[in-house]
Amino acid sequence: MLVYADNAATTPMSEAALNATVDAMKNVWGNPSSLHTVGQQAKVVLEEARAKIAGLLGASEREIYFTSGGSEADNQALISAARFGAKRGKKHIISTKFEHHAILHTLDALAKEGFEVTLLDVHKNGIVTPDDVRAALRPDTALVSVMYANNEIGTLQPIREIGAVCREAGVLFHTDAVQAVGHVPVNVAEDNVDMLSISAHKFHGPKGVGVLYAKRGIVLANVINGGAQERGKRAGTENIPAVVGMAAALEEACANLEKNAAYIGAMRDTLIAELSKIPHSVLNGDREKRVPGTVNFCFEGIEGESLLLMLDDRGIEASSGSACTSGSLDPSHVLLALGLPHEIAHGSLRLSLSEYNTPEEVAHIVREVPRVVEYLRGMSPVWENLEKGIQPHLI
Amino acid sequence: MLVYADNAATTPMSEAALNATVDAMKNVWGNPSSLHTVGQQAKVVLEEARAKIAGLLGASEREIYFTSGGSEADNQALISAARFGAKRGKKHIISTKFEHHAILHTLDALAKEGFEVTLLDVHKNGIVTPDDVRAALRPDTALVSVMYANNEIGTLQPIREIGAVCREAGVLFHTDAVQAVGHVPVNVAEDNVDMLSISAHKFHGPKGVGVLYAKRGIVLANVINGGAQERGKRAGTENIPAVVGMAAALEEACANLEKNAAYIGAMRDTLIAELSKIPHSVLNGDREKRVPGTVNFCFEGIEGESLLLMLDDRGIEASSGSACTSGSLDPSHVLLALGLPHEIAHGSLRLSLSEYNTPEEVAHIVREVPRVVEYLRGMSPVWENLEKGIQPHLI
Repeated sequence: MLVYADNAATTPMSEAALNATVDAMKNVWGNPSSLHTVGQQAKVVLEEARAKIAGLLGASEREIYFTSGGSEADNQALISAARFGAKRGKKHIISTKFEHHAILHTLDALAKEGFEVTLLDVHKNGIVTPDDVRAALRPDTALVSVMYANNEIGTLQPIREIGAVCREAGVLFHTDAVQAVGHVPVNVAEDNVDMLSISAHKFHGPKGVGVLYAKRGIVLANVINGGAQERGKRAGTENIPAVVGMAAALEEACANLEKNAAYIGAMRDTLIAELSKIPHSVLNGDREKRVPGTVNFCFEGIEGESLLLMLDDRGIEASSGSACTSGSLDPSHVLLALGLPHEIAHGSLRLSLSEYNTPEEVAHIVREVPRVVEYLRGMSPVWENLEKGIQPHLI
Repeated sequence: MLVYADNAATTPMSEAALNATVDAMKNVWGNPSSLHTVGQQAKVVLEEARAKIAGLLGASEREIYFTSGGSEADNQALISAARFGAKRGKKHIISTKFEHHAILHTLDALAKEGFEVTLLDVHKNGIVTPDDVRAALRPDTALVSVMYANNEIGTLQPIREIGAVCREAGVLFHTDAVQAVGHVPVNVAEDNVDMLSISAHKFHGPKGVGVLYAKRGIVLANVINGGAQERGKRAGTENIPAVVGMAAALEEACANLEKNAAYIGAMRDTLIAELSKIPHSVLNGDREKRVPGTVNFCFEGIEGESLLLMLDDRGIEASSGSACTSGSLDPSHVLLALGLPHEIAHGSLRLSLSEYNTPEEVAHIVREVPRVVEYLRGMSPVWENLEKGIQPHLI
């Protein structure tokens, strides 16, 4: 049995998305900037996809900018708000300690340019509150950026309420919604967001394509300069097959949102119930306020990498946290932000499900994970101490 | 008959590229940063594609960085060289007046940051010489960027010789090879280039993917910050299906390079011979030093857009210049750089062929273009004056 439980890292394409992408590769390959028929037909398809995506997000077509993915959208959102703010003497940015690196590293770059960045602490339940944001606001705050759902632990943030705080203060609000769109209801108008980032391959769409939503009136700065594509804000020949595939995937995900959330959520709840029975295990992040598919556990006395490799041997494809940093030996910055000590943060396991998983697969996971944990603990000196009653790190 | 003669704008995917891309979408959808089997299998495929592309360009694997396309590669090359130079007190950049806007607009942005940019004039034959470059070099020159083949008129630049001049002076040399790779022999070592940009959709590969070649030792600056993909220099989950499709397309293009060049070149020569017979027509750019597929003519007294639309009606898909700026009413900056007056530059026609075109299609073009030109001139007051012997703009 092969159980793919790493859908927060990436997902396989849905049949609808694959068919739409391949059909466009064969039939809509023109350059939409060309005046001739082949080009203009491509432009029609591009704008239909834009309208579809806009509708699914509660936005208007002119607020949708296609990018090469979530990272680019995050970069462009932050850089745009920073440039806009700097012109008005506002050089303070608020974000959180457990953002994706596409946010954190862009903030590092902006800090080097002279921006002042406040990274909010995250509460132990993996949530940042509107009050946290309000307390950090300053007259020179140019932007608040808080992720919609955390990629490692799956917790949902009170985006609507944080957005309201920002609106009240007249501060731009961006949310990295890469782990949320297609999984929970997202509506840019109701959620009070000014900018929002999306990545198609997180909801069974193609890789290499994403969206930056920017509310009407926001002046985007270019990350990629060149031709006048995307109303002059993102150069490069439009990747219509990918855009069309993304639109198909998002349409499908939104149409099945409630059904999928119930189905996936039930499997997730089984994971939580069963894996919580493992002694000295901790579910990271709030029990309730989370996306349907993602859970993250720490098992004291366990090395995350050994756990993953042994699970892989047993056909379970999981992750210790973000795929983007999995080559690193450092513990997860997300778990550290939650206040976990280094030693425990090292032993994390992220399982992220999609509607393609089955209860049988989940049964396999809850059978194998305790066995592997037990086996590894049998080899671990930390665990020996723990058994003897020495529990320095247990939270 | 539908004749697609706008291959410099974009190309349909080859069967090999399409099959490779679709196969990877179905079977290699893992995240190569993941430690598990699905991820590691994807990583193997990614690195195989990198090695294949490196081999075809005369580079080593570690010198190949995947990007979302040619524009991003151009941006990153220029920004990297600028940052590297600035640290050493070198803030002068040399390029040419007829580069693609991905170069020119990035240079505009760098100029705003305090870099000094020298844009070389282009000779009437559409070529920049090594002596032009040598004469512009300064002790504080950080970078020379000259395109390999011009996208509007198709002229090939003496890249190897310009590269030698830069090497001798110890100045970094970048070339935008988007219109050259897959069409003429390109070898980064023999061509003395330090950085080189590629776009897959110009040689029957997928859209949304390109390469930045950067010679070993060059420190790239990130355009997109985030995860540690591409050795930390380009964040975002790798678009393996597109990369694999690009590798297949490039392999095919390189394997058939000579055969295609002979086949396409013969059709191009027919276009040149026949369209030159149209009175008051000018072939833009050197007769010989050009890519196999692209020709660009000016027909005095003609509005470029009317010409395109009438040709489109007759099944000929062509362009007046770069697709990226076709929405603009300004005349081509490339033709202006060649010294053409505004009025003539307005009446340009680019025809760009690929190996999918046929001699029958070319026969259709050379039959229809003169008819349309004659028809449009019959409606044009400029042409009436010209017929009366008033020829203010003829070159």
